[in-house]
Amino acid sequence: MDTLNLQAKFLELRSRKSFELFVVFIIIFSAMMVGAKTYDIAPFTMQLVIWLDVAITLIFLAEISIRFIGEQNKRDFFKNGWNVFDTTIVIISLIPIQESEMALLGRLVRIFRVLRMVSIIPELRLLLNSLLKALPQLGYVLLLMFIIFYIYAAIGATLFESINPVLWGDISYAMLTLFRVMTFEDWTDVMYETMEVYPMSWFFYISFIFLSAFAFLNMVIGIVVGAMDAEHKLMEQEQSPEPSLSDLQRELGDLKLMISNMSAKR
Amino acid sequence: MDTLNLQAKFLELRSRKSFELFVVFIIIFSAMMVGAKTYDIAPFTMQLVIWLDVAITLIFLAEISIRFIGEQNKRDFFKNGWNVFDTTIVIISLIPIQESEMALLGRLVRIFRVLRMVSIIPELRLLLNSLLKALPQLGYVLLLMFIIFYIYAAIGATLFESINPVLWGDISYAMLTLFRVMTFEDWTDVMYETMEVYPMSWFFYISFIFLSAFAFLNMVIGIVVGAMDAEHKLMEQEQSPEPSLSDLQRELGDLKLMISNMSAKR
Amino acid sequence: MDTLNLQAKFLELRSRKSFELFVVFIIIFSAMMVGAKTYDIAPFTMQLVIWLDVAITLIFLAEISIRFIGEQNKRDFFKNGWNVFDTTIVIISLIPIQESEMALLGRLVRIFRVLRMVSIIPELRLLLNSLLKALPQLGYVLLLMFIIFYIYAAIGATLFESINPVLWGDISYAMLTLFRVMTFEDWTDVMYETMEVYPMSWFFYISFIFLSAFAFLNMVIGIVVGAMDAEHKLMEQEQSPEPSLSDLQRELGDLKLMISNMSAKR
Amino acid sequence: MDTLNLQAKFLELRSRKSFELFVVFIIIFSAMMVGAKTYDIAPFTMQLVIWLDVAITLIFLAEISIRFIGEQNKRDFFKNGWNVFDTTIVIISLIPIQESEMALLGRLVRIFRVLRMVSIIPELRLLLNSLLKALPQLGYVLLLMFIIFYIYAAIGATLFESINPVLWGDISYAMLTLFRVMTFEDWTDVMYETMEVYPMSWFFYISFIFLSAFAFLNMVIGIVVGAMDAEHKLMEQEQSPEPSLSDLQRELGDLKLMISNMSAKR
Repeated sequence: MDTLNLQAKFLELRSRKSFELFVVFIIIFSAMMVGAKTYDIAPFTMQLVIWLDVAITLIFLAEISIRFIGEQNKRDFFKNGWNVFDTTIVIISLIPIQESEMALLGRLVRIFRVLRMVSIIPELRLLLNSLLKALPQLGYVLLLMFIIFYIYAAIGATLFESINPVLWGDISYAMLTLFRVMTFEDWTDVMYETMEVYPMSWFFYISFIFLSAFAFLNMVIGIVVGAMDAEHKLMEQEQSPEPSLSDLQRELGDLKLMISNMSAKR
Repeated sequence: MDTLNLQAKFLELRSRKSFELFVVFIIIFSAMMVGAKTYDIAPFTMQLVIWLDVAITLIFLAEISIRFIGEQNKRDFFKNGWNVFDTTIVIISLIPIQESEMALLGRLVRIFRVLRMVSIIPELRLLLNSLLKALPQLGYVLLLMFIIFYIYAAIGATLFESINPVLWGDISYAMLTLFRVMTFEDWTDVMYETMEVYPMSWFFYISFIFLSAFAFLNMVIGIVVGAMDAEHKLMEQEQSPEPSLSDLQRELGDLKLMISNMSAKR
Repeated sequence: MDTLNLQAKFLELRSRKSFELFVVFIIIFSAMMVGAKTYDIAPFTMQLVIWLDVAITLIFLAEISIRFIGEQNKRDFFKNGWNVFDTTIVIISLIPIQESEMALLGRLVRIFRVLRMVSIIPELRLLLNSLLKALPQLGYVLLLMFIIFYIYAAIGATLFESINPVLWGDISYAMLTLFRVMTFEDWTDVMYETMEVYPMSWFFYISFIFLSAFAFLNMVIGIVVGAMDAEHKLMEQEQSPEPSLSDLQRELGDLKLMISNMSAKR
Repeated sequence: MDTLNLQAKFLELRSRKSFELFVVFIIIFSAMMVGAKTYDIAPFTMQLVIWLDVAITLIFLAEISIRFIGEQNKRDFFKNGWNVFDTTIVIISLIPIQESEMALLGRLVRIFRVLRMVSIIPELRLLLNSLLKALPQLGYVLLLMFIIFYIYAAIGATLFESINPVLWGDISYAMLTLFRVMTFEDWTDVMYETMEVYPMSWFFYISFIFLSAFAFLNMVIGIVVGAMDAEHKLMEQEQSPEPSLSDLQRELGDLKLMISNMSAKR
């Protein structure tokens, strides 16, 4: 009872918009402070933010502890991915950071503290959930992309290796160069270089750009159509109180039966 | 009565397409004239445009004054954001500009004069309204983007600071560099530099590009789906004279009752 | 009668897919031949293509003449924009080209010959029609873009003129530079230059990129939503043989009347 | 019977997700191994992967042979494009590769081995099918693009040839340069160069960017609308068990007839 009561209080605290905004502000401020060594912030403000940051982590710790105690079956608690995520973030945030020693570890810990924002903002979780759901759809297009990249990289590494071994010396280098071409980053420099030896090599680049852009476009369209489809189905479900045509057909059937009964009775 | 009459006349004047086009033309011409010092325009044309520009501001001033006088409760007038906007623009436009003194202030005043276009074209207001409405939707994706940027910037600043302090010397510098990478602007130069020390650092850039592009894409799709949803609902509301299936069901219910009454009567 | 008969024959010829493909092939081949002076084409092939090209123009001339003769009211003929377009293209194509004299005019004539493709392919006309229809929708967004560009250009020209007069010397130069920034073309070079004097000027560029990208995105979404809307309405019109709910409601009303009549009769 | 039985077994093997994943892993590993000469892989692992790769090709060979034997009419087998594709890939994969001789042919053979992935993953086939179906839609937009490119290339080659013959020396060179401008790749360098001679030539580039971007955008929108339309029709077909309004109208007609019969009988 008591833990449930406390849990409800924490839930209420977390769902308050003002608390959320305050926490987000402190986390961002604290995160930026870590990075920016040159900003001139009054030592008092700095100290205050550090203490507020610690306080937030403690609130998170208390909240997650109560959530854990409230869970009847302790094993089920860690079956929920977000519970595991929250716990990990809170534990990492608790690691004390001494500036002088283990600077790299200390920095990494601070970096991950920014992820507490995902714990506090439910909309971010929804967003991440929907991103994770969209990933498998991408799987096959990425595979197709890999095949396109691989074939072009293999051809490129075979033909252009002697021209510029830094860009085309290996299939993996060639794939990186092709990714660069796909982002249009100084791709003409790469092309002009090979066109001096193979004047027709522009076809290699143009066809690659068309193919990869076309596959990419198709991926985007696939996601858009999928997203709108899902939206559409959601909207239709919401409108379910509206009777379907089948319901009307059933009622018409009833009517027919009633009238034919009337005729028969006479 | 009189002010209402005048107000109606101004409204009629403003809603005339020819007047709108004339004003837009004068504003753009006047705006370009300010900027371009080297254009050879006949002094007479120049003087004419300056006077027409002043005339437009005076028309605006007259119109907004009458709108203000026509408002019953003077406080409500400034509760409408667009009224505040219009008044500010007109007042700023009235500041006289002497070329010689306070050149910077004079220039700023002229810059804001171009915003009178927003006052005269109702479609621009609609557009701005819809843009402002779309902003909160972006809030959470921007937060997610910030988290991605921050984590990568922190890692980048830690690892690459010694390689190029101009690009990676600070978390804020690193975030600017990452924004540059996200726009594909000479990003390979940044990458090749760090790959000399950390040969696997291409993974840092490629994964960042994928993550940020994916989050960006998701944002775009979210807006598209939202916009189409709103459009859809608007369309459905417009079609409201069409009876809904519930209406038909109700009528069928009536019919059943009527028939069962008939059967009962006999 | 005779002209109608001929007109029908030309229409049939033009609507044949094989004829269309042949004409498109000759036009493209002829167009490329003009441009590429260095290709080694057998003189015979070249001569053949030139004659075929002339033949196509003559067929077009004959066809359009008959269309003109067939038109009852000669004035209505030129009220159709496409008729004017076709006639202009055919007349320009008839201008003889002497290589030696008036080289520039000759080239321009040849360039416009490629537009005969628009005359022969009905799908291209449909495409151009839909593009022209989409233009007015863009008008207001372009105006908004102009306002954004103008304000940033005016600020940029005021602050950065002394840093680099080539890029920021004038409002029109500044607008060109901003367009460059918007296409992400070496925009960091522009930014790093001004950041040396104004370290906070990154905010100028980042905010400009966000604003212009956001306005551009909105424009794209507007067009997409508009296009899908039109598609939707078209689809609904095609399904018109399907009775509407109003039709059903009317029939139910009839039924009620019949039953109440029955009850009354007794 | 026997072949059918074997065919069913192969089909079952291929449709198992674990087998698919295993094959994809081996193909990618084998493909990367070919390209990367510098990776330090234990010779044993390398040999194992080579043998597994051969084994997969043999499984594919066995499977396609049985599919061929199972086909009643041997001619129909090669009417299916995918059967031809699979057979070609398997035959090419069987060509033995000696490292020393015919290095280029050996490499090409290996490159095409990666296409076995398309044979094993049905989703990739679906994707390719839908890409091939979308191509004809693009045809006319590509033609329009060609016209835009050709006209601008011809003008560019005429005006700018003397400024930079490498970029504008020929219509085909000019088209490549324009493609570069369209991808925003160092396009300002191209522009600044010509602006020194023709100060107004920025209009040439800006108008080209607008026109080509607009045509490209239209193409994308066309594909999106087409894809969503197809999706929509598919969804409607799936909902076909739901009675249409016509069905309801027919039933209402029946009712009316029944009631009028009743009234007539009396």
